[in-house]
Amino acid sequence: MPFIFSKMKKIRAAVVGYGNIGQYTLEALEAAPDFEIAGVVRRDASDRKGIAECIPVVDDIEKLDDVDVAILATPTRKVEENAVKCLEKGINTVDSFDIHTKIAELRKNLGKVAKEHGAVSIISAGWDPGSDSVVRALLEAVAPKGITYTNFGPGMSMGHTVAVKAIAGVKAALSMTIPVGTGIHRRMVYIEVLPGYDFNEVAAAIKADPYFASDETHVMQVESVDALKDMGHGVNLVRKGVSGKTQNQLFEFDMKINNPALTGQVLVCVARAAMRQQPGCYTMIEVPVVDLLPGDRDQWIHLV
Amino acid sequence: MPFIFSKMKKIRAAVVGYGNIGQYTLEALEAAPDFEIAGVVRRDASDRKGIAECIPVVDDIEKLDDVDVAILATPTRKVEENAVKCLEKGINTVDSFDIHTKIAELRKNLGKVAKEHGAVSIISAGWDPGSDSVVRALLEAVAPKGITYTNFGPGMSMGHTVAVKAIAGVKAALSMTIPVGTGIHRRMVYIEVLPGYDFNEVAAAIKADPYFASDETHVMQVESVDALKDMGHGVNLVRKGVSGKTQNQLFEFDMKINNPALTGQVLVCVARAAMRQQPGCYTMIEVPVVDLLPGDRDQWIHLV
Repeated sequence: MPFIFSKMKKIRAAVVGYGNIGQYTLEALEAAPDFEIAGVVRRDASDRKGIAECIPVVDDIEKLDDVDVAILATPTRKVEENAVKCLEKGINTVDSFDIHTKIAELRKNLGKVAKEHGAVSIISAGWDPGSDSVVRALLEAVAPKGITYTNFGPGMSMGHTVAVKAIAGVKAALSMTIPVGTGIHRRMVYIEVLPGYDFNEVAAAIKADPYFASDETHVMQVESVDALKDMGHGVNLVRKGVSGKTQNQLFEFDMKINNPALTGQVLVCVARAAMRQQPGCYTMIEVPVVDLLPGDRDQWIHLV
Repeated sequence: MPFIFSKMKKIRAAVVGYGNIGQYTLEALEAAPDFEIAGVVRRDASDRKGIAECIPVVDDIEKLDDVDVAILATPTRKVEENAVKCLEKGINTVDSFDIHTKIAELRKNLGKVAKEHGAVSIISAGWDPGSDSVVRALLEAVAPKGITYTNFGPGMSMGHTVAVKAIAGVKAALSMTIPVGTGIHRRMVYIEVLPGYDFNEVAAAIKADPYFASDETHVMQVESVDALKDMGHGVNLVRKGVSGKTQNQLFEFDMKINNPALTGQVLVCVARAAMRQQPGCYTMIEVPVVDLLPGDRDQWIHLV
């Protein structure tokens, strides 16, 4: 699309956290026509590996100028404290918080802070929760009776892998999600163990973690986690339902994607949408899809 | 979901037009927990075939009480005049206007009338344009570079069939859409011809219609169109694109559905959403998906 963005004020975004998601978020910001990168926020601001010379790297978002929106690419469990800190300064936030059972509570908490400070927060904005949620809500609407199954993988789960890494004794980890049908998954966890830790105790701690407690989980010790890593992932989302009084309406959504690349891109789209909402906290199903796209709404009518 | 709708004021909807879409729309309204049927508007109000005794049937929407929203199930080319008439009375409207090249103009025209009268119009709300548009816009956002192909069928196209029926000399018609890949379609048109008309002239008029002019179109004369009719339809929507700087992101959305049943259900969801927007005219990509669902937003967080 030949948009004219040169005359528009660009959105100044900061990337908070610089792991996998942070790196791909930075790439998506560089590729976006309507953003400019305010900087990267990470614990060790002296580590600039892979970050272009022109991009400020700091250890506190207060050290960056004129940040419109902070893209929180931190572990899920650090999202709330980082979001509150930004929102209190009037900086919009987006994140890909992925503990499904705690989304409602996070939305409520951040909504209060956001409204008090005239800011916008869009939470749980990755691909699941995130873009998949939009598809799920749409299918629920167009076939109100029925069952939706979301089948993930095979692929590396970023959230689960981070959760494993947080467990004492884990040196390196990879959590693979294997679909076994009808929304049921097996977790295949590959770890390197730190010296002085017992593999069986570490494995038991992983299986007891809320991320894994309700799934069939296998933990395996390997020489090199790195040798197993591939960041491809997949989704097969199916709904069979009833529209009005008509049975057997069949819907299916499939993706085969690079996981952190898609998450980074979704975060950037949602950062754009955050600039267009009224103060408050939202999930992606509460945001018009057109707001994810750059430029004026009128430019996207051809997609309708 | 065990919603408590008994205490809520129900949305009073009128169905304008009572062909295939109107009939399925009425079923979707009957199945919806938060609607009540204000009545059916059709040219011949004495024709109550298939309509329950308790539902008023009138020839003018002014004869119905307290209509919140009019669901326009008329032929596409009658949408604008009907919408204007309703909006001028402050009645919200929804339609499934499906001439893609004229959507921008309709949105502009109805937007003006809607704002003047404090009403809401949501246009082009079927499954394509409509729910497919939401998926297309979402995929454009999450993989901004790339190509989307929307492949339809095999199935009966309601819009194309209605367009054929409007041509002089056509007694009965069926237009089938056949996908030939990469968004290219063949139109197979089956017609019965009225006495006194020349088949070849009628066929030429069909092929010259804007609905058919740019597609490979075959027109065939048959004894009985009715014997060929099946209202199943399908979509295969694919996008291969780039997220950030990462190539080869693959997305696919498939449906196998009863066509007018899905259209009717989408119209009802969108009628609900119309009650929740600020005055103006919208397409479905401009409306938060959660607004398509009944009840409070908080009830749908589990879909995220």
